[in-house]
Amino acid sequence: MDDTLHVAVAGATGAVGAEMIATLERRAFPVSSLTLLASARSAGKTLSFRGEDVVVRELTADAFDGVDLALFSAGGDRSRAFAPEAVARGCVVVDNSSAFRMEPDVPLVVPEINGADLEEHRGLVANPNCTTAITLMALAPLHRAFGATRVVASSYQAVSGSGAKAVAELERQVADLAAGRPVEREVYPHQIAFNVLPHVDAFEEDGTTREELKLEREGRRILHHPALRASMTCVRVPVVRAHSVAVTAQFERPVTRESAREVLQDAPGLVVVDDPAAAAYPTPLDLAGRDECAVGRLRVDRALDNALTFWVSGDQLLKGAALNAVQIAEELLARDVLRVPEGVARHA
Amino acid sequence: MDDTLHVAVAGATGAVGAEMIATLERRAFPVSSLTLLASARSAGKTLSFRGEDVVVRELTADAFDGVDLALFSAGGDRSRAFAPEAVARGCVVVDNSSAFRMEPDVPLVVPEINGADLEEHRGLVANPNCTTAITLMALAPLHRAFGATRVVASSYQAVSGSGAKAVAELERQVADLAAGRPVEREVYPHQIAFNVLPHVDAFEEDGTTREELKLEREGRRILHHPALRASMTCVRVPVVRAHSVAVTAQFERPVTRESAREVLQDAPGLVVVDDPAAAAYPTPLDLAGRDECAVGRLRVDRALDNALTFWVSGDQLLKGAALNAVQIAEELLARDVLRVPEGVARHA
Repeated sequence: MDDTLHVAVAGATGAVGAEMIATLERRAFPVSSLTLLASARSAGKTLSFRGEDVVVRELTADAFDGVDLALFSAGGDRSRAFAPEAVARGCVVVDNSSAFRMEPDVPLVVPEINGADLEEHRGLVANPNCTTAITLMALAPLHRAFGATRVVASSYQAVSGSGAKAVAELERQVADLAAGRPVEREVYPHQIAFNVLPHVDAFEEDGTTREELKLEREGRRILHHPALRASMTCVRVPVVRAHSVAVTAQFERPVTRESAREVLQDAPGLVVVDDPAAAAYPTPLDLAGRDECAVGRLRVDRALDNALTFWVSGDQLLKGAALNAVQIAEELLARDVLRVPEGVARHA
Repeated sequence: MDDTLHVAVAGATGAVGAEMIATLERRAFPVSSLTLLASARSAGKTLSFRGEDVVVRELTADAFDGVDLALFSAGGDRSRAFAPEAVARGCVVVDNSSAFRMEPDVPLVVPEINGADLEEHRGLVANPNCTTAITLMALAPLHRAFGATRVVASSYQAVSGSGAKAVAELERQVADLAAGRPVEREVYPHQIAFNVLPHVDAFEEDGTTREELKLEREGRRILHHPALRASMTCVRVPVVRAHSVAVTAQFERPVTRESAREVLQDAPGLVVVDDPAAAAYPTPLDLAGRDECAVGRLRVDRALDNALTFWVSGDQLLKGAALNAVQIAEELLARDVLRVPEGVARHA
């Protein structure tokens, strides 16, 4: 394998795709050639990478010929259609959709937590749900130290998690309200400006949303902890960028503020912002555009025994998506496993 | 006692005071004479009641001479200074501050839940914390049916809970951002526009805020349930009016969505808005200006046994403050106990 790689971004014109391109550049990922792919509608557009224009091509199976690594963020349907085709062509795929996250032979990875799972990949690696990844950045080190058993969480999710259209909708609604114009809705079923909506992703039969199931389902895989129990209420809030989560976690062993703080201060990719006297705690505005997640508001929980309540914020387009995907690629390189295993790739 | 009453509102020029005046009028409370009181700075202002101008007077002890009922929302310090003076003058006080909520001989009342506690009042009745009152509107009927043991909750609190200045701050910040001007902060320590702040009220030594303690402390009194355990994360969100709370409640007895819904549908002052297929759930925008609270997103909790997770929204200036205060006054009248008991009032 060369030192530098032919990399593709599928879904290059979306909010996460743009962050993937910027993150590859910012972190000096060894890209020899960058292929940008999107739907036919977006093909022909030009995006910038390392100061050079790159023309977006249509996402097709053949576009992955000769590509070493593809970062997908083009929606679950396109991932299901094209990721196996890319792998068959010898391209390792890091997929940001939920399409393959529960597949037993697809590692679901947050590099700081379970990077070793990448050793077993079969060409396809799944990037976790954004809220799950951000929550686990604080929960995983606490779990290692104290043994997590149950988690009850509520989220405060930014509109950019629904894509660029949702950011435009929030801005348009705010402007319309200021001008006394009627508010129009397109992305969300209710006004999001000056409102909060307890509704992220589609509803299941039992009244839960799919988003609310991800912390438990994905957390069990990432933490290698199939007995973990987690419930969430996922709420969209009129924040442009960065998600926050209020987390109550119960542990097998006693936990104090001080012991939790010690553990969290040593956790990679995480900063502790927790000085109530100085009104210092994470806010989404402070975390927007930052690689790290931040945790604060640490306190022993009053309702559950051996439990800690805390607040974590992180940029869901970065650690919750593009950054984590590039970190997975970096980890594949560092472990020297950035290739599709023999017998999986179909050598045309 | 006459059929009609001399009523005073202390803190008449504040956000809650304005709602108290409007609620007295809207609910046709039997007011023969209305005295409006505020700080010396606001004295001389004119407010409207039943189409007539009422001049605001300075809040002093003597202002309560001849007053039958006073609704206080002038801050804890003024309540501590003047409420006992009013009671000594034979005036029954319903106090919206936190000053007396934990006093054993001061009933803390949500009329739909523990109106009978008013029978024991000694001239002073406390109105609960806004978030607590709204949460209990759904939690209390569930507790009666299933026996609540533990509650874990996260709030989404509107800026009007911090007063009219905070509403102006949110609006000014949104306008400044739209115009590309720097954002200024006064009420909140961080920008609230397009942000969320896990910080409501002052911090205690253990990292909890005072607001976060109120659900447990006040809930125990209102529900007559001293063993209740409750933890909260209280978060300010850029919503103008109406608070929301994501609640996970554990019970002694099993609970299902259907059994919970039956109980909640019969609860006074509460409407069930829970049709996920139609994207129907409470939002603060829908509850602003409404007397009822609304509950939805009912589902059996995944993390705790015998537990239900739900979402409740309500106008914190109404059910969380002014409406509940007027309802307490109505309940005092209905129970024929709207007088200061013998031996408490000092007959000058």
